[in-house]
Amino acid sequence: MENITSAQNARVKSWAKLQTKKGRQASQTYLLDGWHLVQEAINHDGKLHAVMATAEQLEAHMADVPHGVPIFQITDDIAKKLSDLVTPQGIFAEVTMPSATRDPHFIHDGAWLFLDGIQDPGNVGTMVRTADAAGFAGVVFGEGSVDMYSPKALRAMQGSQFHVQTTTGDLKEWTTAFVDNGINVYGTQLDPEAADLFMVEPQTQFGLIMGNEGQGMDAELAAATSQNLYIPLTGQAESLNVGVAAGIAMFALKAR
Amino acid sequence: MENITSAQNARVKSWAKLQTKKGRQASQTYLLDGWHLVQEAINHDGKLHAVMATAEQLEAHMADVPHGVPIFQITDDIAKKLSDLVTPQGIFAEVTMPSATRDPHFIHDGAWLFLDGIQDPGNVGTMVRTADAAGFAGVVFGEGSVDMYSPKALRAMQGSQFHVQTTTGDLKEWTTAFVDNGINVYGTQLDPEAADLFMVEPQTQFGLIMGNEGQGMDAELAAATSQNLYIPLTGQAESLNVGVAAGIAMFALKAR
Repeated sequence: MENITSAQNARVKSWAKLQTKKGRQASQTYLLDGWHLVQEAINHDGKLHAVMATAEQLEAHMADVPHGVPIFQITDDIAKKLSDLVTPQGIFAEVTMPSATRDPHFIHDGAWLFLDGIQDPGNVGTMVRTADAAGFAGVVFGEGSVDMYSPKALRAMQGSQFHVQTTTGDLKEWTTAFVDNGINVYGTQLDPEAADLFMVEPQTQFGLIMGNEGQGMDAELAAATSQNLYIPLTGQAESLNVGVAAGIAMFALKAR
Repeated sequence: MENITSAQNARVKSWAKLQTKKGRQASQTYLLDGWHLVQEAINHDGKLHAVMATAEQLEAHMADVPHGVPIFQITDDIAKKLSDLVTPQGIFAEVTMPSATRDPHFIHDGAWLFLDGIQDPGNVGTMVRTADAAGFAGVVFGEGSVDMYSPKALRAMQGSQFHVQTTTGDLKEWTTAFVDNGINVYGTQLDPEAADLFMVEPQTQFGLIMGNEGQGMDAELAAATSQNLYIPLTGQAESLNVGVAAGIAMFALKAR
């Protein structure tokens, strides 16, 4: 175990860079903040490069860190530098981003969530967590969707990135590949003329597209789906939060 | 129209106090931030005490402000003082909080959402918005639930407080009154032993309780319900975000 006391330490500076997408892309790693998320990585064979923790957190959790993972003791000030929280818990892990992209032509089972230009990190994290809870196989981040490894997205995700597959991809390619393979892909639209979500028979294998918070789904993408669905709104609200809409659609469509 | 240029102006100071619960309780008013929310108040007969806007925002929207509502022109600096956003739009309204509490014994129709100790303002706002979209009659804030008029809650609510009834109340009293009147009240639990949500027949008149993000529903309250329900989770996630869970439950239970 190495003891780091200076916030100017080179390792601290490189970990701090993982708070930005640019820093994460350069190192192909990201930072987990708090014991709950670190524990999820440990329990689900996340590839840990390092665990960094204050003396207090090390005392509580050091025995649970797998052998061979470098451990660094840090100060409260360094913990604050690595976290976007006002009062961080004081334990972090640097883990590898899964790099393999998937070829949609070779996917033949499970339900997949496609995110088309989702902008809010909290929404993205919540949707990955919900996809996990609904028993989805994976989540595909289309172009224009926000990075899933930001601190805020990871907090909302609650470790579900270790339970479901996540990948980036061209959603038009994914949609076409699924449809060509005879797998339904459902778009979602804020359009009462679209088909009623609750009229679709639950199934085990399909794609579900959620569109951008303001603009909705890309028009070309909507034209490539098997069918576009609408969640029937009966009150006066014009729309639902996209994370809530995704939850309603995933639990309505996925056969249990 | 009055022109205010000093952030030290007494009116500015009193509006700024509406960012805190204490300030809102003292004046029994709250602050809407941004034209979308101000417009919802205007369209749905919210009681406006004042509209405050920068020159640019006044030019765009002054014609839509009802006659008789005092209008104040403010500077960008004052707008920043009234907002919790980094770059506020620059238009605000001070509106009356609805003060009437409802007696649950006299409620004989519609679906009602009961919030038991919900802590996150974003979750609270999202749930009111979803209740509106699902055609619920109202939302009851039990003790320990966060204030619904904070800027963050209001942003997530998107004006739905003007479409559904909102009130505070003792949830045990509400639950008992509903059950005594022959109206089902459903609790929600993270317990696979509870009844499957999707096995309940959709209905038009009922109560639905959502519990605290960490602790869930109060045990005494759970004992007073007609039935406690569980959203069947098929993946590895331990739970859902409470706002997502509320959306799934509301759309599953409410007959359309």
